[in-house]
Amino acid sequence: MTRQPMTRRAFVRTCATGVSTFAAASVMAKRSPAAQRRRPNIVLIVADDHGRGDLGCYGNPVIRTPNLDKLADEGVRFTHAFCTTASCSASRSVILSGLYNHYNGQYGHQHAYHHFASFDSVRSLPVLLSQAGYRTARIGKYHVAPDAVYQFDTVLQGNDRNAVQMADNCRPFLNAQDEKPFFLYFCTSDPHRGGGRAANLPHRPDRFGNREQGYWGVTEVKYDPKEVIVPDFLPDTPECRAELAQYCQAVSRIDQGMGRFVEHLKTSGKHDNTVLIYISDNGIAFPGAKTTVYEPGLNLPCIVRTPWQRNKGIACDALVNWADLTPTILDFAGATPADYEFHGRSFKPVLEREHVEDWDTTYASHTFHEITMYYPMRVVRERRFKLIWNIAHGLDYPFASDLWESATWQGTINSGRKLYGKRTVDAYLHRPKFELYDLQNDPHEVKNLADDPQYKDRLDAMKEKLRIFQKQTKDPWILKWNYE
Amino acid sequence: MTRQPMTRRAFVRTCATGVSTFAAASVMAKRSPAAQRRRPNIVLIVADDHGRGDLGCYGNPVIRTPNLDKLADEGVRFTHAFCTTASCSASRSVILSGLYNHYNGQYGHQHAYHHFASFDSVRSLPVLLSQAGYRTARIGKYHVAPDAVYQFDTVLQGNDRNAVQMADNCRPFLNAQDEKPFFLYFCTSDPHRGGGRAANLPHRPDRFGNREQGYWGVTEVKYDPKEVIVPDFLPDTPECRAELAQYCQAVSRIDQGMGRFVEHLKTSGKHDNTVLIYISDNGIAFPGAKTTVYEPGLNLPCIVRTPWQRNKGIACDALVNWADLTPTILDFAGATPADYEFHGRSFKPVLEREHVEDWDTTYASHTFHEITMYYPMRVVRERRFKLIWNIAHGLDYPFASDLWESATWQGTINSGRKLYGKRTVDAYLHRPKFELYDLQNDPHEVKNLADDPQYKDRLDAMKEKLRIFQKQTKDPWILKWNYE
Repeated sequence: MTRQPMTRRAFVRTCATGVSTFAAASVMAKRSPAAQRRRPNIVLIVADDHGRGDLGCYGNPVIRTPNLDKLADEGVRFTHAFCTTASCSASRSVILSGLYNHYNGQYGHQHAYHHFASFDSVRSLPVLLSQAGYRTARIGKYHVAPDAVYQFDTVLQGNDRNAVQMADNCRPFLNAQDEKPFFLYFCTSDPHRGGGRAANLPHRPDRFGNREQGYWGVTEVKYDPKEVIVPDFLPDTPECRAELAQYCQAVSRIDQGMGRFVEHLKTSGKHDNTVLIYISDNGIAFPGAKTTVYEPGLNLPCIVRTPWQRNKGIACDALVNWADLTPTILDFAGATPADYEFHGRSFKPVLEREHVEDWDTTYASHTFHEITMYYPMRVVRERRFKLIWNIAHGLDYPFASDLWESATWQGTINSGRKLYGKRTVDAYLHRPKFELYDLQNDPHEVKNLADDPQYKDRLDAMKEKLRIFQKQTKDPWILKWNYE
Repeated sequence: MTRQPMTRRAFVRTCATGVSTFAAASVMAKRSPAAQRRRPNIVLIVADDHGRGDLGCYGNPVIRTPNLDKLADEGVRFTHAFCTTASCSASRSVILSGLYNHYNGQYGHQHAYHHFASFDSVRSLPVLLSQAGYRTARIGKYHVAPDAVYQFDTVLQGNDRNAVQMADNCRPFLNAQDEKPFFLYFCTSDPHRGGGRAANLPHRPDRFGNREQGYWGVTEVKYDPKEVIVPDFLPDTPECRAELAQYCQAVSRIDQGMGRFVEHLKTSGKHDNTVLIYISDNGIAFPGAKTTVYEPGLNLPCIVRTPWQRNKGIACDALVNWADLTPTILDFAGATPADYEFHGRSFKPVLEREHVEDWDTTYASHTFHEITMYYPMRVVRERRFKLIWNIAHGLDYPFASDLWESATWQGTINSGRKLYGKRTVDAYLHRPKFELYDLQNDPHEVKNLADDPQYKDRLDAMKEKLRIFQKQTKDPWILKWNYE
């Protein structure tokens, strides 16, 4: 079975013919009162701009993430988990709605003058869980709107740069004597850029939230720029290394918070009935990852630890994406609504499997980051091939203000270097209408096959697959196939 | 004095130096109870896509608009009145807020998946008037959001394609025995495109709301395609003539509604204390006008009839724009808030003058029409020269779905004709970064002087003027001067 994104209409049509890939998940589970009591607690942890390569358990030999690695040892980590847009606000709305942005209305940033918001018709994860009898709370970064759509029962306070403090502040919620299971949405602002430039350090890297005075309860882990791992998509320059060292420090801060959180969960006596999911909203905040649809932007950490995992510590290769999260969590909760459809589907059934055949396609739909950054892209990504449609390819590729100003990018353009990672600066800035990559032979997505006659049939087939995806998910930008 | 768009900060700064161009308008008028009773009623009539050339009083010898002509005979008509964006929803938010769209947040269409809305911080005309003791009501097209920002006390019902019925339905509001003055916002959906194609007519023109069975109370005025006036910016083709005939019929329907409305106003006994303002939201719904920043898109009818006009029937040449409407109407009402600034200023002081020296610049700021139509343009237009900055000039010029499908446009592209009005089809679709026109010698804006070395100083000066405007009005797109 291939991934079949479905609209409600498509779903109804499918049901009418008696063939539904969604049927199992679309009927509200009927449970006995005893079973109701066994419904698990669920904690969804969302880091901010944490790349897939920057965890010990995902193969990084330098970064120190022992608590996240332990989570992976006890659960399953996904090697092919993807956001559907590499932009904080938009991605978080997909996580909480199970719908691509072109259909949920959160086309870009929510805050300040960007001012995007989801449609009132969206039924979000916390609201559905609350309706199903869950206690719901959130702590830390939110970045979606409107409140009524993404309503949580409780909003916990805490410094979102200090996951240790956040963990501590969750204790009353974790310990509450309440028969209801809980859903906790725990979102750090680490390791996002922020806090200005570290003027005292060589190359004036962004601080990534790190402070001279540190944070209460956190033992800061500092990194030597010489030792950090520079991924292939970034330039191995002093500026970039200086920034990566700051970034890694912020990641280690999250990790300590995760350690503290699990301690509190154990103390509460609920650890054995709690599902923990760790993800990031999008890739690392460097040009080449965040805001792009290249692999470093979309391919992210995803660790799922349930108390019932039998095949502990496995890596699962299913292509899952963030539109699947809401259906998956509702599946855990037995709270899948009968009368409402998502674009994603539950990946709970694959948690014990390493190699999965029927999860072999993912889609991405990116339109804005900041309101001034219109650059709609639509993507179909299979195991080997990936097609990107740059709808506004006539524009230079836009920059988020913080990425533009970064020491890494400014260092590149000021030096006049032609390469940025494996890609040329020119190719980064000026993109063709279609990009087709063979990820097996070209994992860095630098050799565009879209104009290669040998790949014409594949190109056409993937275009058609993309068009069907857009039609099924009611993408307003589908008209761009016909006219501007 | 040249137009000085000001932010609140700029205003405070100016005040601090003791020099305020806004001082007179910025102090809430203190009036005696007797004076309060004399505050005028105000009716703002907004037509939908009615071009400046399509009224008898603006020189069209074919179209029949006797009631609007009479309004102009008794008042003043502006020859240089401009919307600031030629897009319904966005323009209406400027009309009701006195703020350019890049600052009020209504960057594009409000309805359906376009989903733009103004910021909650906007203080709109109806809310300010209501706070000042006016009864406020609206009837017909609305197209702005959120409701709380653009709140009217009363929403009257009526078919917005039938201005006669709308006029009748306003009677209870006009006749109410209430000491308070009133503000009525009267918006037709005529002469917008709509109602499908007239399949029974040659060239299958859009119906522009016209129906076989007509409308209750309306004597339809029909036009012979052979006789309509084809403006220079449109192609003189059978398709275009067929559509213009439909369009003119819809305009005449509005005119009848205006006649009926004035009758009711007279019957109510309030005609002698009522200000009537007639405008359109943007230019005619044909490629070349609506959605563009060319003159036919921006330069619109504006008739102001007060009971106190001494120089009746004059034409005033002040360059006013729709950001001036809210300050002007508040000035009529003596309700200008002391603690809040608009981008526009009251043009009430010029109503008795034909030639005005100190209203010599207007600006336009367009970003979206539909959400899929990102094409930010910023414009400074003086009496003679006009500069357009096409920020996303790398894109083909986008089309509203109804303009793309129009018989006029499809007729043009299917015929393979290279000209569309005075402009080439190619020039219409592909625009340079800057367009500089000498409107005196080139009223149709076809000879771009931006690359002519003779005009370099003028180009630079107008760019600087535009940048200052953007800075003062806090335009997020100002960053595009520096990087994408």
